[in-house]
Amino acid sequence: MDIKSVLSEYLRFPGISADPSAKQAIADTAKFLAGLLSRAGATPQIVETAGNPIVVGRFNAERSDLPHVIIYGHYDVQPVDPVELWETPPFEPTFRDGKIFARGSADNRGPHAVAIVAFANLLARRPDLPIRATFVIEGEEEIGSGSFPQFLRDNKAELSTGDFVMLSDTESPARDLIAITIGLRGVVGLEVEFEGPNCDLHSGIFGGAIYNPLQALAEICASLHKPDGTVNVPGFYDDMTPPAGWERNELARLPQTDESLKKFCGTDALHCLPGYSGTEATRFAPTLEFNGIGGGYQGAGSKTIVPAKAFAKITCRLVPAMSPDDIFQKVSAAILARVPAGIRAKITRMQECPPYYICPPNHADAATMPNRALAAAFSAAHEIIAAQFGNPPVYTRDGGSIGIVEEFRKVCGLNSLMLGFFLPESKIHSPNENIDVAFLEKGVKTYEAVFEKIADAGKA
Amino acid sequence: MDIKSVLSEYLRFPGISADPSAKQAIADTAKFLAGLLSRAGATPQIVETAGNPIVVGRFNAERSDLPHVIIYGHYDVQPVDPVELWETPPFEPTFRDGKIFARGSADNRGPHAVAIVAFANLLARRPDLPIRATFVIEGEEEIGSGSFPQFLRDNKAELSTGDFVMLSDTESPARDLIAITIGLRGVVGLEVEFEGPNCDLHSGIFGGAIYNPLQALAEICASLHKPDGTVNVPGFYDDMTPPAGWERNELARLPQTDESLKKFCGTDALHCLPGYSGTEATRFAPTLEFNGIGGGYQGAGSKTIVPAKAFAKITCRLVPAMSPDDIFQKVSAAILARVPAGIRAKITRMQECPPYYICPPNHADAATMPNRALAAAFSAAHEIIAAQFGNPPVYTRDGGSIGIVEEFRKVCGLNSLMLGFFLPESKIHSPNENIDVAFLEKGVKTYEAVFEKIADAGKA
Repeated sequence: MDIKSVLSEYLRFPGISADPSAKQAIADTAKFLAGLLSRAGATPQIVETAGNPIVVGRFNAERSDLPHVIIYGHYDVQPVDPVELWETPPFEPTFRDGKIFARGSADNRGPHAVAIVAFANLLARRPDLPIRATFVIEGEEEIGSGSFPQFLRDNKAELSTGDFVMLSDTESPARDLIAITIGLRGVVGLEVEFEGPNCDLHSGIFGGAIYNPLQALAEICASLHKPDGTVNVPGFYDDMTPPAGWERNELARLPQTDESLKKFCGTDALHCLPGYSGTEATRFAPTLEFNGIGGGYQGAGSKTIVPAKAFAKITCRLVPAMSPDDIFQKVSAAILARVPAGIRAKITRMQECPPYYICPPNHADAATMPNRALAAAFSAAHEIIAAQFGNPPVYTRDGGSIGIVEEFRKVCGLNSLMLGFFLPESKIHSPNENIDVAFLEKGVKTYEAVFEKIADAGKA
Repeated sequence: MDIKSVLSEYLRFPGISADPSAKQAIADTAKFLAGLLSRAGATPQIVETAGNPIVVGRFNAERSDLPHVIIYGHYDVQPVDPVELWETPPFEPTFRDGKIFARGSADNRGPHAVAIVAFANLLARRPDLPIRATFVIEGEEEIGSGSFPQFLRDNKAELSTGDFVMLSDTESPARDLIAITIGLRGVVGLEVEFEGPNCDLHSGIFGGAIYNPLQALAEICASLHKPDGTVNVPGFYDDMTPPAGWERNELARLPQTDESLKKFCGTDALHCLPGYSGTEATRFAPTLEFNGIGGGYQGAGSKTIVPAKAFAKITCRLVPAMSPDDIFQKVSAAILARVPAGIRAKITRMQECPPYYICPPNHADAATMPNRALAAAFSAAHEIIAAQFGNPPVYTRDGGSIGIVEEFRKVCGLNSLMLGFFLPESKIHSPNENIDVAFLEKGVKTYEAVFEKIADAGKA
């Protein structure tokens, strides 16, 4: 099976999960994908959910004696707006300059098709391969994976027999430098509502006697950081595990510098936890971030009021071993303790996800891996990537949170091997999304070798 | 002429200036008003403007030897929404419980009709009254008096011959306690835009390295007050003239207390300039107030971004002898000096109006009055109000700003005598707007006596 020809077909389906009128395209994509899995040698099933179907492909499903790898991906794609900025139509896959241009080429159809093609090729070579594999390709990742947790709970008995999850929905820093993501920041969100007077008041008639909720909001939000940029919440850093020396060394292999980060963001100064570079701070350090603040008059011109209400949307990014619950409690307590007389504050808990971390075997005793199959997969990935791409993989923590990685761990007790198979220049979520074909072809060889090594390592 | 019957007609016109479909009603109102002025004895003129017409009524316009009083009012009214909360239709004037209920009854048709009826009655009694009077009733007050400054400039030669302006578009604290407004706070507004990264950034990928514009906004806004509530801008209070002792004593006559103010605003604590009660702080003290703050995600739920931009809308209320220009410069300089590296701030100057103040003759030598007619008017108002309402008037500064009072002073060099002829229970701008008829009838007697005293005092 050939990744180029597979994508020439697969990238034609406009399966935009955010578009309510794309239901048929979503169904068509799922059907195509089921066929692809079947061609690869797996037994396909289209599982209906409350939202879009999840496509499952099983190989050796009855064999509990074999190592069992679960491959995750998502077939749904981002909207294509602004469509006029595409050089070729987003759902007409086009090859030029060694790349394939189409919506979904990098996020995520290309990368998970790599796994399917690799699996097909391996089975063609070794039809009796002693491995059990379950492909799980969902259709709602771009709109929050709403149906996925229920799917995991419904299929917990089966999926918990997996040894680990393998996925490629992360970025690698360069065509010759593949990232293996070993950590993700967690997150916990809260929304604070500040209430002052019982209605918007005329600032001429009442201004000067009433605590303005916007002033309270500003004072309390300002109090949440110290002048050195650290979070001013008692105990905030108590459970933070600083990065190991080797992790800092790994991160130093990334091409990003503070200068390039400033240039990319269009800012003339970074603002990091003391002792951390920009790259380190976004991956190793927790944050308290204001995502949205509002209150009072929002339109053009001016309206002379003392507003009744204001709000602040806050999220904290968490690193090992901080807990969403603990941080929510600490931040909430700090805020409530700082509310002045005349103002009432109400805090609502929003989304949360714990931080994720797994130490790779080349930086710790492989025995710390939960099972032999996962250790074999990490080792295989390391060797094959070094050979295929000319550099050993870089082990990084990412600054973001990937909900399904946490769901797999929470519901099924599974860790994840995350291989980055899109690139900074892939323009995911933007016009002219693309992926380098030679890069994907090396990905196919990597996945194939990893699958083979898992099979040959045998069950723990 | 009888105020009750005049209002029974006048309050039927739905002249809502904010309603683009009410143009005919506005024209009809102006026509009715011109007729009313004619019946009262003045020569009416409907002056077209870029917006709604201004109705002018002249009496003795050719007599430059007589004291010349200019009477201001506005015939346009607020919208009636939510109309279902009205007990009787807003444009069907209804008498019950000694009050007349209708939109505009208190703001401002009732109070300026008082002046017209008083003038008519006085002329009926003394047809040769030695006074020159110019009624100027505009139709855009509720939408900002946009055409009024140009009208003043166009008619400056005529209007500058006036001795002063008389108006009743302010509140009195009770049916037996009439306020004469001798001061108004000024205002100067500014909008600050804070810019950080060049676009909204993913808070997982970039959070922890970038100065969040919302954090900068919070820190800078928080810095603008000290813990004691005073404005933390160098020189902010330099030009503030503290109130005279007699002014504090006058204000103490108002029924409002800190407790009643707290109850009205639904708050459990006031927040005033040290040494000032709530009533004093809102009238004698300057402020720096946040009218609106916004930035980042404003919708339901959460969006994990480091936003690119944020804004704060700020207005300062000014008291004598603070200047809008000086305060704008000082606040802007303080803000710009506090912008951290990584953030850019841009400040736009918004609306402004200087503070207004005139000392009444019973609290200073009447010679400080700019002319004999104004001194006579103040003295007459004092005596008649004391007799009619059982209490001498209370001389107060108001916390708000009335643009046209400043425009009359700026363009024509005229001071204003402001008699409060609506009440706290009049529900201006709200459903069931009303005015007490006996209260208005006393107002008619007051205006009549004031006009007569001005006439008899003669030209300066």
